[in-house]
Amino acid sequence: MLIVDKLISRIDEKSCPIVVGLDPLIEGIPEHIKNQAIAEHGNTLQGAAEALFQFNRELLEILNPIIPAVKLQMACYELYGQWGIEVFNRTVILAKSMGFVVIDDSKRNDIGSSASLYAVGHLGNTPLIEGVDNSIKADFLTINPFLGNDSITPFVEQATLNNKGLFILVRTSNPSAKQYQTATIGGLPLYEVIAGDVQSLAKEHPGENRYSSIGAVVGATCDEEVNTLRELMPNVFFLMPGYGAQGGTADQVVTAFQNDGYGAIVNSSRGIIFAYRQPMFKEDYPGRKWKQASLLAANLMRDDLLRSLKQAGKLPKNW
Amino acid sequence: MLIVDKLISRIDEKSCPIVVGLDPLIEGIPEHIKNQAIAEHGNTLQGAAEALFQFNRELLEILNPIIPAVKLQMACYELYGQWGIEVFNRTVILAKSMGFVVIDDSKRNDIGSSASLYAVGHLGNTPLIEGVDNSIKADFLTINPFLGNDSITPFVEQATLNNKGLFILVRTSNPSAKQYQTATIGGLPLYEVIAGDVQSLAKEHPGENRYSSIGAVVGATCDEEVNTLRELMPNVFFLMPGYGAQGGTADQVVTAFQNDGYGAIVNSSRGIIFAYRQPMFKEDYPGRKWKQASLLAANLMRDDLLRSLKQAGKLPKNW
Repeated sequence: MLIVDKLISRIDEKSCPIVVGLDPLIEGIPEHIKNQAIAEHGNTLQGAAEALFQFNRELLEILNPIIPAVKLQMACYELYGQWGIEVFNRTVILAKSMGFVVIDDSKRNDIGSSASLYAVGHLGNTPLIEGVDNSIKADFLTINPFLGNDSITPFVEQATLNNKGLFILVRTSNPSAKQYQTATIGGLPLYEVIAGDVQSLAKEHPGENRYSSIGAVVGATCDEEVNTLRELMPNVFFLMPGYGAQGGTADQVVTAFQNDGYGAIVNSSRGIIFAYRQPMFKEDYPGRKWKQASLLAANLMRDDLLRSLKQAGKLPKNW
Repeated sequence: MLIVDKLISRIDEKSCPIVVGLDPLIEGIPEHIKNQAIAEHGNTLQGAAEALFQFNRELLEILNPIIPAVKLQMACYELYGQWGIEVFNRTVILAKSMGFVVIDDSKRNDIGSSASLYAVGHLGNTPLIEGVDNSIKADFLTINPFLGNDSITPFVEQATLNNKGLFILVRTSNPSAKQYQTATIGGLPLYEVIAGDVQSLAKEHPGENRYSSIGAVVGATCDEEVNTLRELMPNVFFLMPGYGAQGGTADQVVTAFQNDGYGAIVNSSRGIIFAYRQPMFKEDYPGRKWKQASLLAANLMRDDLLRSLKQAGKLPKNW
């Protein structure tokens, strides 16, 4: 089964098109986890990285019954050097062993020869002095297409070779996204041109159903464009950041779903993983109860999305 | 002294505007280094990473008298997971202790909140459970501007705070660079618009001399555009990849230098670090003599650049 079909099947099993962003910040980690990490590893990069892992582990355990996929923002881990990378990889392995589809959100990019190395490092088998290393990698990788085709092709090749997937940045969710992404080529905005190129790649690499493992990142906050992008990329699965903390609403993201209710997965990071710090949850979920707030926040987000899907007449039949 | 002024001063000391790319590939490492690494660490990711470090160490030692700066392509290290990151950092620390200016070529990019984490991780002080970590970081970082201002600002902030520099991708050296970088905004190609924005940042963050620590990546292979980009960015120092293996010539890169002979540093990676594998050097530099070929290749490149600078009437007076 191609990885995109596995993703769709997991979404279907849980009736839940949500990917939770495991984007931990040390200041947001509950005290008892930090105290334990300091006791074991001291106030070091390793200690901080270990606190991130234990935070992730507790989240993965409580979210597993309802959430099909997680996304790890590499920036949160890379900050902790070699220890952060070890924790990133350990989290990927744990999440996959629990059945989550895992997205490596690294937005890598470089010219061809270096892109090949990133592609192998994130999706393939690293060359050793003799032979190759077969460590477990994430299922999907995000990439930045700014350098053009010869920088994208190596990622597509490694994804195809190893049954992995990509989410290519087409239109990001940040306020400044328009600044360069709306430059035009032949009268079309750059994000539409890239969308056309991603659709072509998707057609060249079809999955079992409608979608390819070559997907797109389309921000939930750019609602005028989502409809156009959905039309331009009928065979492309959308990863949608921007819901919640960044201001995207359920009604906005529903545009990205096709009429059968599939075709997109919506990310939330801070809104779920740090729910226990929000005023509405803070008092009821102190100390070790913190993760119950994340479960509740994830359920509320699911209800919100399913309500909007239903209103739009797009709720999948068996959900 | 601002980091850009230190870079210029190092270039001046050596009369050599070259940055050597420490972009090691395991298949290109001499056998005796690989054998030693396997003996010490086995045929593992750690063993391969250690071979990269020993290769780098020998290069740094032999190139130190003539080369002012090195650039580490992150993709070459990230491939080896936590061990690769440890070797990346160990190489940065060694190179800085020897007096090299060090460029971290990671092309990082993300929306604002994640860009802040990348910026802190590559240029600043990582937050621990209590306080911050003060590990030594590289002097300059390359970043990809595709996501717009709010993704660039956090890097500028951390660079300013820690006396580090940036090289922002303006026009890359790969064949597909034109595909998206020539999209237009108000009739101007995107790379010129980005150039204007980088020049504005440079003016806001001036160094002691003409240049800012906010620099630009301008590919040596795009010669028609280099002249325009130099005019658009008079206060911007250029990092120029693409010389040698990628096809850029000395006459092409000389356009990027201002009339006084400053304003750019030219990168060569494979052409120098793997010189011993080239037909012209192969027979004369077997076994442990390999690095002599790198020294010779670096000297030949320096001669080539200085000859072209002289022909263009741009050779600095005291070189």
